[in-house]
Amino acid sequence: MPDILHRIGIKSSSPKNTYQALTTCEGLAAWWTDNTRGESKVGETLRFRFGDRGGFDMKVLELVPAQRVLWQVIDGPEEWIGTQVSFDLKQDGDYTIVLFKHQGWNEAVEFMHHCSTKWAIFLLSLKSLLETGKGAPYPNDVKLDNWN
Amino acid sequence: MPDILHRIGIKSSSPKNTYQALTTCEGLAAWWTDNTRGESKVGETLRFRFGDRGGFDMKVLELVPAQRVLWQVIDGPEEWIGTQVSFDLKQDGDYTIVLFKHQGWNEAVEFMHHCSTKWAIFLLSLKSLLETGKGAPYPNDVKLDNWN
Repeated sequence: MPDILHRIGIKSSSPKNTYQALTTCEGLAAWWTDNTRGESKVGETLRFRFGDRGGFDMKVLELVPAQRVLWQVIDGPEEWIGTQVSFDLKQDGDYTIVLFKHQGWNEAVEFMHHCSTKWAIFLLSLKSLLETGKGAPYPNDVKLDNWN
Repeated sequence: MPDILHRIGIKSSSPKNTYQALTTCEGLAAWWTDNTRGESKVGETLRFRFGDRGGFDMKVLELVPAQRVLWQVIDGPEEWIGTQVSFDLKQDGDYTIVLFKHQGWNEAVEFMHHCSTKWAIFLLSLKSLLETGKGAPYPNDVKLDNWN
């Protein structure tokens, strides 16, 4: 099954700070979408909304402080349901490295191509948030194409 | 085998103009790397260099004006050799859509995660070039991590 994979390196941060931005509604709202609700606890659900376009409900499957976050999509676009999104963190010299995976897609449909580029845009927003204090979450995200 | 997939939509362009930016050294140098040489003809080789970091030699396998470009990597990082890079173009309403694929990776290594995000950055540079007249090719590209 095809996967979406990304890697970013964040200067002037730490795995601990980066983990905060992935596991609090305040952090998530500052780089992904300003409409983020729910609780980042294993077994609980995080709800991400993008205006009229709907959004995603993520069940939190795994949390390892400063190391790993794993979610499963339980509601959202049909192609996303059942897929898993993970963030693995480590320090490498001056950089906090985030290895990102969105796995479990059934098919490499055109929508998956869109989501891959869009994830890159949001991960660059996460990098910017941690390096400069300012991310570009929805609705201020970089627009990509006619599905945006 | 895992693939890198992306989709961008370009306003105020056309598949014909976008194809130009993918099949001339002048066009490629304006969004990917300023050090682009060679010839965009089937069977010929394009050479992309990124300062001290080396680069890629691409054999041109397929050219369909305003529709499709396919290259095969014949020199560069070990993980890239033998992989294929394609751009498929179409018009969808006000947007020229580029479906990008970098296929044939043996394994989803960490370097592939980096390359996936980096391709997104360069494709956004291509979008910017065609929409505004100004891309951000190497060495003025957005830097991503400690491998950059």
